[in-house]
Amino acid sequence: IKQYKVAVLAGDGIGPEVMAEAEKVLQVVADKFGFGLTLTPALVGGAALDATGEPLPASTLELCKKSDAILFGSVGGPKWTGLPPDKQPERGSLLPLRKTFDLFCNLRPGQIYPAFADLSPLHPRVSSLGMDVLCVRELTGGIYFGEKGRNDNDAFDTQRYSVPEVTRIARVAFEAAQKRGKKVTSIDKANVLQTSILWRQTVEQVAKDYPDVALEHMYIDNAAMQLIRSPQQFDVLLCDNLFGDILSDEIAAIAGSLGLLPSASLNGSGFGLYEPAGGSAPDIAGQGIANPIAQILSAALMLRYSFGEEQAACAIERAVQHCLEQHIVTRDINPKSTYGTAAVGAAIVATL
Amino acid sequence: IKQYKVAVLAGDGIGPEVMAEAEKVLQVVADKFGFGLTLTPALVGGAALDATGEPLPASTLELCKKSDAILFGSVGGPKWTGLPPDKQPERGSLLPLRKTFDLFCNLRPGQIYPAFADLSPLHPRVSSLGMDVLCVRELTGGIYFGEKGRNDNDAFDTQRYSVPEVTRIARVAFEAAQKRGKKVTSIDKANVLQTSILWRQTVEQVAKDYPDVALEHMYIDNAAMQLIRSPQQFDVLLCDNLFGDILSDEIAAIAGSLGLLPSASLNGSGFGLYEPAGGSAPDIAGQGIANPIAQILSAALMLRYSFGEEQAACAIERAVQHCLEQHIVTRDINPKSTYGTAAVGAAIVATL
Ligand SMILES: CC(C)[C@H](C(=O)O)[C@@H](O)C(=O)O
Ligand SMILES: CC(C)[C@H](C(=O)O)[C@@H](O)C(=O)O
Repeated sequence: IKQYKVAVLAGDGIGPEVMAEAEKVLQVVADKFGFGLTLTPALVGGAALDATGEPLPASTLELCKKSDAILFGSVGGPKWTGLPPDKQPERGSLLPLRKTFDLFCNLRPGQIYPAFADLSPLHPRVSSLGMDVLCVRELTGGIYFGEKGRNDNDAFDTQRYSVPEVTRIARVAFEAAQKRGKKVTSIDKANVLQTSILWRQTVEQVAKDYPDVALEHMYIDNAAMQLIRSPQQFDVLLCDNLFGDILSDEIAAIAGSLGLLPSASLNGSGFGLYEPAGGSAPDIAGQGIANPIAQILSAALMLRYSFGEEQAACAIERAVQHCLEQHIVTRDINPKSTYGTAAVGAAIVATL
Repeated sequence: IKQYKVAVLAGDGIGPEVMAEAEKVLQVVADKFGFGLTLTPALVGGAALDATGEPLPASTLELCKKSDAILFGSVGGPKWTGLPPDKQPERGSLLPLRKTFDLFCNLRPGQIYPAFADLSPLHPRVSSLGMDVLCVRELTGGIYFGEKGRNDNDAFDTQRYSVPEVTRIARVAFEAAQKRGKKVTSIDKANVLQTSILWRQTVEQVAKDYPDVALEHMYIDNAAMQLIRSPQQFDVLLCDNLFGDILSDEIAAIAGSLGLLPSASLNGSGFGLYEPAGGSAPDIAGQGIANPIAQILSAALMLRYSFGEEQAACAIERAVQHCLEQHIVTRDINPKSTYGTAAVGAAIVATL
């Protein structure tokens, strides 16, 4: 039987509690669909800082290198703000992990579920039209990783993109669109940035290989506006690192259900890091009320993208859908609900 | 009597029709409040491209240099897309004007008017709480104007900021906040960018001179999210050039009433460019249905910031408010309305 090794980096805040539910779900589908899973925990983020002084200790990185995928919880909290950037729990763990494993592709789906349209902060006349977008974000280039510098009076950052870098992320977007709404909206600021002009030309080039997918270009400022005015117009959004950071969070706000949104960060050889879109939510940590669904759906994405266990992934997604339909949800989804983290996890396990 | 010279750059699309109403309003308040206005038209944008091959002809720039302020309409349209960036109507006129006149400070107010909360695409439970933000955007620095380059395989853009550049725009934000809600939210990506760390430190420094104003820092991705979740939490947003471009358009979308939103771009000596936040709207140009209010309110900002004619500015704003209350609005504000551009302009003139 197939054996998969997973590095489990639960992190801070609600990370450990929602991770516990995802682990239970994973063990159940492993048994049911006949594969083996080794889930090995390791420290990351603030928890790792407290224990070792580093947000991503060498031992954690070693474990990740020996694993087939990383299941990531969430990191950060008030205790660790004010540290220099390299030491910050979020930045100090995520950026090196992305770079080390060349996780160039970030996938962030964002939906307004018709049954939960009221979760969206958009007006019903807009949210009732629905939203079902996939944000494809370049994750290892651009202004995040370009040359930067600083003296007393001045600072600079460099945004750099090459044709191969844009090509590989554009292919992911077009391939995803082929399986979805067959439309790619590529985001840039080609009226100002040279990198955006290169981005646009390269995407045009890639588009020729996908004649069944419609391509449109949109300036980032207009996209920030259009997502609010009529999010239903979008299918796949293709973004550079910085614009994808901004728009994927805007999409999450529009969906209104951070607790339901998973994400995947992938490299070219099937390795990936999977994490909920939301943060460590220190304000509700330890109370057993955090929504485990985003973490559980992140585990499903891991089964799909890193292990090719499509059936097991679908089974999890169906079980989640079932619980949503039965209104077995935490109070972020329904303020009147009395289900907690463990109860929702147990319901998903039971459904499976 | 005081004499002010205004370069009137109406531009393309709905620019000329809404500008005509703003000119009428300006002449009325000039008579009423006893100052002289010379309004001199010049070509800009697509209209200028067609006539001269340049989006900002030398003669137009000369006129602007001899004037006390620029009243700008809107530029661009389908006819001129696909041109190289320097020739594009919007970019090719606005960026050189900003640079030539050192218009480092862009002010974009964005409101949800309680009486028109339904214009907002936000859910009533959010929009009913209101929004009243002023976006203060740095306009002559950052990645817009840094060194850029391109070869076949690669492109780069440089974002650069210096302490004096950040200081002067931060002062504008704090001074504006003192007259408003006494809160500044400074936007950055200090967990990734060196320019953002410099930005944050400089803003902290400036804040010491304004002990009556509360300062908070927010990452751009979180700000894009928070504006949708609870826009009422913000008073003054202080942004660099790129982040301000994105968030000011997001704010306009949330307000839901582009046709009501003016903007001002100022330098340190009272010279400014004033323009509506919306675009040239070629789809409705020439039909007499465009909303002239954003252009008229832009003229009011010109009277206030460039000419110090506070009373005349307030008179225009009150007249606009009065028409809104009387529901004398174009159909972008009320689809059932039968008022056109000229009727709304005439009503504001009559109120004055
Ligand atoms: C922590 C930070 C560096 C990171 C980013 O900007 O990429 C985060 O916001 C994200 O989107 O995963
Ligand atoms: C036309 C473009 C260069 C410009 C900008 O990005 O500054 C526009 O979007 C604006 O905000 O005035």
